[in-house]
Amino acid sequence: MNQKAKNISRDNQKAFQDMWPEIMTYCFGCGRNNEEGLQIKSYWEEDEAVCIWKPKKHHRAGQGLLCGGVITTVMDCHCVNTAMASIYKEDLREIGSKPIIPYVAGTIQIKLLRPARMNRSLTLRAKVKETKGKKKIVECSVFSGRTECARGEVIAIQVPEMFWIK
Amino acid sequence: MNQKAKNISRDNQKAFQDMWPEIMTYCFGCGRNNEEGLQIKSYWEEDEAVCIWKPKKHHRAGQGLLCGGVITTVMDCHCVNTAMASIYKEDLREIGSKPIIPYVAGTIQIKLLRPARMNRSLTLRAKVKETKGKKKIVECSVFSGRTECARGEVIAIQVPEMFWIK
Repeated sequence: MNQKAKNISRDNQKAFQDMWPEIMTYCFGCGRNNEEGLQIKSYWEEDEAVCIWKPKKHHRAGQGLLCGGVITTVMDCHCVNTAMASIYKEDLREIGSKPIIPYVAGTIQIKLLRPARMNRSLTLRAKVKETKGKKKIVECSVFSGRTECARGEVIAIQVPEMFWIK
Repeated sequence: MNQKAKNISRDNQKAFQDMWPEIMTYCFGCGRNNEEGLQIKSYWEEDEAVCIWKPKKHHRAGQGLLCGGVITTVMDCHCVNTAMASIYKEDLREIGSKPIIPYVAGTIQIKLLRPARMNRSLTLRAKVKETKGKKKIVECSVFSGRTECARGEVIAIQVPEMFWIK
C-alpha cells in the first residue's frame, strides 16, 4: 500500500454507502441516513478503496487531536464496506444490486502511530488482502493530512442477508 | 476475568472520568464535557474497572444492533482510563491529583464475538494485565446484557503531560 495519501479521483462513481438498500443505511459509522453518525463515503481507486472524512468538533480526544476510537470506527466501516464492494467488483455487478451479500466486522486491529489533527481530513486506503471462505482480511492505512497516523486490519465476515432484518 | 456481568457496586466512588482535570474532559469517548460524545463512566470493582454504558438510537449498526466501532470506542476509552487510574491506585493518590500521568491508546484489538443489542446496556470489565515501561496492556471483556459480545486488548502508552495542551 502507498505510504502517501494521493489525490483522489472519484470520476463519476457513487460512494459505496450511497448504493446500499435503505435497511443498511442507519449505521453510526457509514449510514447515509444516520444524521448523527460519521457518514463516511468510500470509492474505488483501482484496487484500493479510498475514503476521505472530515471530523467534527465533538470527535476530538484532547486539544486539537482526533479521538482514536473515532479513527477506528471510520476504519472499521470503510474496511467492511470495502469487503462488500469487492464482491460486486468481482461479479461485475452494481453495488447494492440483489442478492445483497452483507459482511460484518469480526476482528478489528489498529495501531495508532501518530496523533491525527482535528483540522485535517482523514484519508483511508483499504485493500482486500486475502479471502478465506466467508472471511475477508482487509488492510487499511489512515492518513491525517499527508502523514500516516494509523494502520490496521479488519477481518470482515459474511453473514446471511437476514442478519439485517433481525 | 469473570465471564458473566455481575452487579456493580459503586459504593461511594466517583467515576474516573469525573475526576480528571478540565482539559482532559472533551474526549468523544470519555469526556464528561463532550455533550455529543459517549460520556462513559468507569469505576473500580476490586482490581477490575467496570463501565456500564447505554447506547443511544444513533449508535446502531443494523436494525436493533449496536455499531462495532462504537463498542470499540467505549472499550478503548474504558481501557485507557483504567491504565491511568491504575497509576493512582498504586500510588494511593486521588485520581486527577497532580502530577497527571496521561496515557493514550497505542494499539487496539477487539474480537466481536456476538451481536450487541441496542436495547441492552454494555458492561465492560477491564484489568491491567501487564506493565512494560511506559506501556500498560489492558484486557477487557464486553457484555451485552449478560452475554459476552466482545473481547479485546488495548496497549496504553504513557505520554508527557504536555501532550494534552499541544
